[in-house]
Amino acid sequence: MAQKPSIPKGTRDFAPIEVSQRKYIFTIIEKVFHNYGFLPIQTPSFELTSTLLGKYGEEGDRLIFRILNSGEKLKKADFDALNNNNLARFANSLSEKALRYDLTVPFARYVVQHQNSITFPFRRYQIQPVWRADRPQHGRYQEFMQCDADVIGSTSLTLEVDLILMIDDVLTQLGLTDFTIKLNNRKILAGIAQVCGETNKIIDITVAIDKLDKIGQHGVVEELRKKNISESAIEKIKILFNWENTWQETLPKIKTFLSTSEVGLKGVEELEYVLTNIEQLSLKRAKIEFNLTLARGLNYYTGAIIEVKSNEIKMGSICGGGRYDDLTGLFGIKNMSGIGISFGADRIYDIMNSLQLFPNELYSSVSIILVHFDEQSQRFCMKIAQKLRKNNISCIVYPEQSKIQKQLKYANDIKTQYAGIVGEQELNTETITLKNLKSGEQETISIQQLLQKFNSQK
Amino acid sequence: MAQKPSIPKGTRDFAPIEVSQRKYIFTIIEKVFHNYGFLPIQTPSFELTSTLLGKYGEEGDRLIFRILNSGEKLKKADFDALNNNNLARFANSLSEKALRYDLTVPFARYVVQHQNSITFPFRRYQIQPVWRADRPQHGRYQEFMQCDADVIGSTSLTLEVDLILMIDDVLTQLGLTDFTIKLNNRKILAGIAQVCGETNKIIDITVAIDKLDKIGQHGVVEELRKKNISESAIEKIKILFNWENTWQETLPKIKTFLSTSEVGLKGVEELEYVLTNIEQLSLKRAKIEFNLTLARGLNYYTGAIIEVKSNEIKMGSICGGGRYDDLTGLFGIKNMSGIGISFGADRIYDIMNSLQLFPNELYSSVSIILVHFDEQSQRFCMKIAQKLRKNNISCIVYPEQSKIQKQLKYANDIKTQYAGIVGEQELNTETITLKNLKSGEQETISIQQLLQKFNSQK
Repeated sequence: MAQKPSIPKGTRDFAPIEVSQRKYIFTIIEKVFHNYGFLPIQTPSFELTSTLLGKYGEEGDRLIFRILNSGEKLKKADFDALNNNNLARFANSLSEKALRYDLTVPFARYVVQHQNSITFPFRRYQIQPVWRADRPQHGRYQEFMQCDADVIGSTSLTLEVDLILMIDDVLTQLGLTDFTIKLNNRKILAGIAQVCGETNKIIDITVAIDKLDKIGQHGVVEELRKKNISESAIEKIKILFNWENTWQETLPKIKTFLSTSEVGLKGVEELEYVLTNIEQLSLKRAKIEFNLTLARGLNYYTGAIIEVKSNEIKMGSICGGGRYDDLTGLFGIKNMSGIGISFGADRIYDIMNSLQLFPNELYSSVSIILVHFDEQSQRFCMKIAQKLRKNNISCIVYPEQSKIQKQLKYANDIKTQYAGIVGEQELNTETITLKNLKSGEQETISIQQLLQKFNSQK
Repeated sequence: MAQKPSIPKGTRDFAPIEVSQRKYIFTIIEKVFHNYGFLPIQTPSFELTSTLLGKYGEEGDRLIFRILNSGEKLKKADFDALNNNNLARFANSLSEKALRYDLTVPFARYVVQHQNSITFPFRRYQIQPVWRADRPQHGRYQEFMQCDADVIGSTSLTLEVDLILMIDDVLTQLGLTDFTIKLNNRKILAGIAQVCGETNKIIDITVAIDKLDKIGQHGVVEELRKKNISESAIEKIKILFNWENTWQETLPKIKTFLSTSEVGLKGVEELEYVLTNIEQLSLKRAKIEFNLTLARGLNYYTGAIIEVKSNEIKMGSICGGGRYDDLTGLFGIKNMSGIGISFGADRIYDIMNSLQLFPNELYSSVSIILVHFDEQSQRFCMKIAQKLRKNNISCIVYPEQSKIQKQLKYANDIKTQYAGIVGEQELNTETITLKNLKSGEQETISIQQLLQKFNSQK
């Protein structure tokens, strides 16, 4: 006997109920994106390797799924590279294409490639799967959906405001009640490095303080020492750890702290604009928080940094984003500022599932199954089915010639609410006996009445 | 300067208008599938190589995109295989996963893997991309969408009828007016081989006569000779070439031709049931044709064979399918008969595009863009935007502080129909000047009136 089949680790099959629930999420996200003036694009699942490699750092490069060249091209395999343990070069000799790792780099590539047909500022959204060769673990998949919205071609801070309102709108409409949008600004992080006299070590400092939640104050200090950050700098950085208050209280303190750093003060000014305007427009359900240690590790952010977490279910961020000033520079257009956010639909799904936020009526099997006594009544059922479908009422005719009990059991198993029974009497009078499988009630009605009944339920 | 970026040959970017048009197709297909009682499932983009290889024949295997193993696993590269020019074995040593080639084999795998939670007969649909390493050419892409519907777990011929009605329904609702559903039955092909005394050469005979359209009668005869089909058999097969009449005329002839073949007569009987019932139920726009030379090359078909072609635009088939009796046998469940069809959404898109079948209103940019004179009026615009979006009216606030003319030019460029202008006077009176950019008309109204106006247009 053949072995029981399976799927690769870190991937998933979705049953009908799950597909419907996931579609519910995408539909709401799409509707809100549309309300905020974003238009959809789609890019191919795989890009040229040269488009992707080097854009996500060394760690990212390693997680990119590559497509094996086919046919004769395989002969170009670089043995020497393998013998010298240069696995990256060996892989390069075997592969020219790779599955996309996120939607941001393909978007930058798209903007540069199609720049002549795009009107800027360009608001685009994109809802497609991405792939990462991550080690599979709880809540981490090798294939998952990203839902991105970006505006490119404007430096206006009103866009930061717009995107934060939109995050609030999406998550509120999905039914989440308790979540926090954390904000920071890369320029503030640059200012901190500058004030500490460690301008060149902004990445090391950023990466270290980003871990405050995970490894605590002590851990961060150790990490800073490992990276050869001076003790005087560390002393200054330690001051920041205890500023866990409202942004209204923290902003003046950080202004004083950064008073000698032009870039730092610019960051504070930007953040203040965004927070003030958000407050005036008021959020629906999101809490907002200025979080000085938020860095998100992504080097392409140059201004606002955004991260969203659920306060009900402990989990990684469910949405993240920020402003970037030179994303398209990677592909040859300089000075094109943009800002974008990305929803992690799979994590949102897990949260909604845990909190039972999906509407009950979401999973509708067929509306009615038509059951019959013989070939002739089955043929009549097929005519009725045609009429029901013409009215967009989902139905099936039981395909086999089986006992009524077996047919009704099937209707129960697939959770249909109604069975329409056609026997000799119904056939002769062109009627149908409609049975409510939940209540057990039944009535014999005309086909016209049947259509009316279902149409009025829509 | 960086090189202008591009995408792999055979793949495509989709601009907003194209995404909307494609979505229009999928939405209609999905709605009709739902009406016929099909439920959605989704499977991962990549499967274990062992799941896919050997299921599509040698040609198919070569067209499967494989995923390169990553990291240390690369060291398992089988040099000997490469040196012996055994590229398939070399590829196997480098890859354990592959992108799906169609939706049928993953469906069979799904059914076997989840058999305990499925109620049979199981009606599922699946709309997802598939990938093939085909040489890119007109109308052939390396990544394209398939829209499949299958019923598995019943041998009832009512399902053949159901699926043919559904094909007619989908294509009619998409706006196609002239298309033909071609039908044949594998058992008839088996019968022909039997009657010709070449039972073992059914594949060769089938492949040859399938090419009648392309290479003509003479070509088919040559191909049959090449395959060592006997001259007496060829003489018999030649009789079939001239039966291009209605099925009502052809069926009696083929019955006589196949009178000594039990399987052949079974095929005729099945076909007759399907065609007779279709005629009684009547199709919307499809023409139906019994096509004795239709084979579709796929060896897993065991009964009905279905193929659909547009009569308006010359192109390959836009839908195909058939009955299979042992698809899940590949994965260990025997005797599970099923029938399925697959729409080629990309070809349907090309046809609809050529025939201009997409509704005009499909491509809606934002409904209104709010323009302003200064920061204060921009802030008021942001409040108006919030109200519009709450009413599901899509809008944007022009992000920069620019001259009104520049802002209105942008509105024109992105094809927005309305601009809402807020200057000092509007700000003071909490009104907005609504300008119809197509007609040039404008009026100053309250925010409440603005909302009413757009709500009534929905």
